[in-house]
Amino acid sequence: MGNFKGHALPGSFFLVAGLWWAGKASFWHVARRGRGTAPPLASRVVQRRLEILEASVTVAFSVIGMLAEQFVPDGPWLRLYNTEEQHWERLMNWQHATMYLFFALAGGVALAVHTTGSAPIALDRLLLAIAFFTEGFLFLYHLHGRAMLDVHVHQLLLYAVFGTALTAFLEMFLRGNLLLELLRAALSVLQGSWFWQIGFVLYPPGGLAKWDLMDHNNMMFITMCYCWHLALALLTVALVYCTVCWVARTRLRRTPSVEMGLLKTDRDLESEDEM
Amino acid sequence: MGNFKGHALPGSFFLVAGLWWAGKASFWHVARRGRGTAPPLASRVVQRRLEILEASVTVAFSVIGMLAEQFVPDGPWLRLYNTEEQHWERLMNWQHATMYLFFALAGGVALAVHTTGSAPIALDRLLLAIAFFTEGFLFLYHLHGRAMLDVHVHQLLLYAVFGTALTAFLEMFLRGNLLLELLRAALSVLQGSWFWQIGFVLYPPGGLAKWDLMDHNNMMFITMCYCWHLALALLTVALVYCTVCWVARTRLRRTPSVEMGLLKTDRDLESEDEM
Amino acid sequence: MGNFKGHALPGSFFLVAGLWWAGKASFWHVARRGRGTAPPLASRVVQRRLEILEASVTVAFSVIGMLAEQFVPDGPWLRLYNTEEQHWERLMNWQHATMYLFFALAGGVALAVHTTGSAPIALDRLLLAIAFFTEGFLFLYHLHGRAMLDVHVHQLLLYAVFGTALTAFLEMFLRGNLLLELLRAALSVLQGSWFWQIGFVLYPPGGLAKWDLMDHNNMMFITMCYCWHLALALLTVALVYCTVCWVARTRLRRTPSVEMGLLKTDRDLESEDEM
Amino acid sequence: MGNFKGHALPGSFFLVAGLWWAGKASFWHVARRGRGTAPPLASRVVQRRLEILEASVTVAFSVIGMLAEQFVPDGPWLRLYNTEEQHWERLMNWQHATMYLFFALAGGVALAVHTTGSAPIALDRLLLAIAFFTEGFLFLYHLHGRAMLDVHVHQLLLYAVFGTALTAFLEMFLRGNLLLELLRAALSVLQGSWFWQIGFVLYPPGGLAKWDLMDHNNMMFITMCYCWHLALALLTVALVYCTVCWVARTRLRRTPSVEMGLLKTDRDLESEDEM
Repeated sequence: MGNFKGHALPGSFFLVAGLWWAGKASFWHVARRGRGTAPPLASRVVQRRLEILEASVTVAFSVIGMLAEQFVPDGPWLRLYNTEEQHWERLMNWQHATMYLFFALAGGVALAVHTTGSAPIALDRLLLAIAFFTEGFLFLYHLHGRAMLDVHVHQLLLYAVFGTALTAFLEMFLRGNLLLELLRAALSVLQGSWFWQIGFVLYPPGGLAKWDLMDHNNMMFITMCYCWHLALALLTVALVYCTVCWVARTRLRRTPSVEMGLLKTDRDLESEDEM
Repeated sequence: MGNFKGHALPGSFFLVAGLWWAGKASFWHVARRGRGTAPPLASRVVQRRLEILEASVTVAFSVIGMLAEQFVPDGPWLRLYNTEEQHWERLMNWQHATMYLFFALAGGVALAVHTTGSAPIALDRLLLAIAFFTEGFLFLYHLHGRAMLDVHVHQLLLYAVFGTALTAFLEMFLRGNLLLELLRAALSVLQGSWFWQIGFVLYPPGGLAKWDLMDHNNMMFITMCYCWHLALALLTVALVYCTVCWVARTRLRRTPSVEMGLLKTDRDLESEDEM
Repeated sequence: MGNFKGHALPGSFFLVAGLWWAGKASFWHVARRGRGTAPPLASRVVQRRLEILEASVTVAFSVIGMLAEQFVPDGPWLRLYNTEEQHWERLMNWQHATMYLFFALAGGVALAVHTTGSAPIALDRLLLAIAFFTEGFLFLYHLHGRAMLDVHVHQLLLYAVFGTALTAFLEMFLRGNLLLELLRAALSVLQGSWFWQIGFVLYPPGGLAKWDLMDHNNMMFITMCYCWHLALALLTVALVYCTVCWVARTRLRRTPSVEMGLLKTDRDLESEDEM
Repeated sequence: MGNFKGHALPGSFFLVAGLWWAGKASFWHVARRGRGTAPPLASRVVQRRLEILEASVTVAFSVIGMLAEQFVPDGPWLRLYNTEEQHWERLMNWQHATMYLFFALAGGVALAVHTTGSAPIALDRLLLAIAFFTEGFLFLYHLHGRAMLDVHVHQLLLYAVFGTALTAFLEMFLRGNLLLELLRAALSVLQGSWFWQIGFVLYPPGGLAKWDLMDHNNMMFITMCYCWHLALALLTVALVYCTVCWVARTRLRRTPSVEMGLLKTDRDLESEDEM
């Protein structure tokens, strides 16, 4: 989807996913430490429900994305090879649909794991790592023969994508590590905001000046700009974490001490679940 | 072996190995969790016998492979250097025989480890990692001067090969981790099915149209196709896992509760063995 | 800052940081092992105060660095793009300011973590790893189109920079591992002394002969010279470690045995803090 | 030292080191498992003495190597820069001396660690990893402008060198892991035998035919030959392990059961030492 919207849309998805992950990880961390949050929310059932909700939304959006890539007016309409003219039909759309496919797989497996509980819970992180790895893998072989700056902005994207894949893979063995979860959230926010930046650079909307794609100074600026996005992503995640902590602490003060005992029991259940 | 059969044959081996590993890992996982399987099968003796069987088959097929590479009609017949014409004899066959050699080594060591028990049990994974690494290593320096698409399909293969090597190496330290075992199985299935794909692309059998090896669109399609193979491999392994779980659960219902106690004892022996 | 001072200044900072880290790690290691040091120093409060001091100094120097890069006479004065002449304003200064920004972030987060204690303590290492990674990342895309030796001396720098980032990342999971802390200190000393070396090679001060930047023998010498710097950095850190050990042991002999009991209590507090 | 002896000599050192490490690791593994070996040998004091012996020999040979590189007839005699003719003096010899320097450092630190016990015992592995890394690092920037096959045989060497460095680094955290120790031994044997192979290829001794350094088939053969060296190295280490096991078991049968109790106490001391 070589236009501004085609980069803004996935960018928004990754932004939302990053913010959601940051909020979720902060919330459970605070709940585990018993420093707050309302008891009914912190229970094991709620945690499972949230995971199922997240997985369902992932599957839904991925399937919608796959259908959209196939059935937009200039899409391939499930036709892969044009035998008359001897060429592949709209490979770009097929590639994007393949990316969505792996996120749909990750969502589906997460759904199965959290609904039935018949597989190790870390399976959802493994599939997430594979989904991000495949996304990066396809981008890697996607860039042949484009202009210098075009290649460069997509290469920078790969740092965030493969970084997320690596973090999710590490989480397979270190599940529940708050820092890895926040790092994954930050890298997802980075990827989201960088998609928007790519849109602005390659397809400047609304009469903005075009960028010179062969200028070396532009490349140097873009590299630095990527670091600013990273700093902003880190600050955003920090802000989410602080807000969650502050809200939880405020609500804790209002919770009478009698309920504190109940809260403890809930926490035990959770940490059991965490295993 | 630059023909269709020469790719289909090793491909079939890796497919079978992947399916076997997926089944074995799922079976022991289910047995360990005590959610089923017939008691006599789950015992320590059976586990050891299965490992010995697997190792023996690996050795047998590797030795057959080595002999076949040497003594096919146009093979080198153990002759390495042609001193008259001053050139190396059929280096390709020698290289393939070298690959088989390392799998034979891995099988032989696994046989020794599981028969005598006089070495740490993780040694079989180390040798497996080395066998896959060597396979990838030889492929890596194998591709000089071929057509673009030929190089590319073999490079894609390396992701599966080195991925399997890395997974087996991690298993050295995290033995019995179900997810790593399933990942290794999936990567082996991927390697097997991709060997078949290479055969179809480079040596289209039975009157199929030839591929243009220098077309950039073909390269983009093949990259995406590799991802589809990965998705299929993941689904295949998931299917094996679910089937094993379902069969085990069905048989458990028929097992009277008296035998459950015996089952527990078996499980203790196993987990001891697992160490 | 393409001159001698512009390399000597950051070099001195990294030298001081490395020496400080070596001293701090050695001191706490000795204190933990209870083989000396005066009791009041070893207490938990002091440890926290030292961390806060270190973080404050990091923030202060990083902010001063950012301001200096912006407001030196030939700096950009916060102007990023020159719309009249259509070019970016002094990208070098902006890049250096970006590097300082991440160290300021790392310092700020360390300050928050050690002051409030409302986040996992390992967060300071994660941010440190990100700060070093970003420094290396910007250097990596910084070198296009320079002379061979100029590129080479900066590439060598990257080994130390990415090495520090990797060590800090490992410390996230293995906090308090003396060897990793000393390795990080040594790599920081190496980076510092190498900055000085770069200054001497590219901008020889005070009438020293210029280096031929295209001579292959110079490149080979410089590579070897880098190894000597590494050896010196290792020796420096070893010297700091031995001095701290020796001082601590000397002072212990003078401590009466009555205070030894108190010391033990302090140590318990510390190791609790270490968690 | 661009001749046959200059490769055979270091090759022999690494061969001996690999065999020694294989024997040492096997011996302690067997002793720890209490399946034999004469009691007095297995004691803690002996283990420390062996480590000190190994470190002393390492230091001695490294210093001899450094002196030899400097004071051979056509060596640099400690002269680094020829100011009259404006060129560096014999950089090759200086580079080799630098490699020896790091092994001397590793030996010296191991000596200090095992003699005084005032530093974490894993420090010897860290320095060993750094020594091998530096060796590989210098080789990496050593190969500019040579013939194709010359570059290739040295590049293959790097797999063994960096592999040893990585294994030693992992041992920092997993000390006493038999498999890592045997892997390090095998990679060291591989490096040793490959040095001999390089000597035979580049400087064929005694009237052997010269190799065509630009022939692509020679490159393919050499790559395969490297795998054969790896297989031989693995078999050599396996042979050493089996011999040690067999000897230990034979001697155990002759040890009366009364001494078995004493043996147990020794083992406890050892495993304590292992920590």
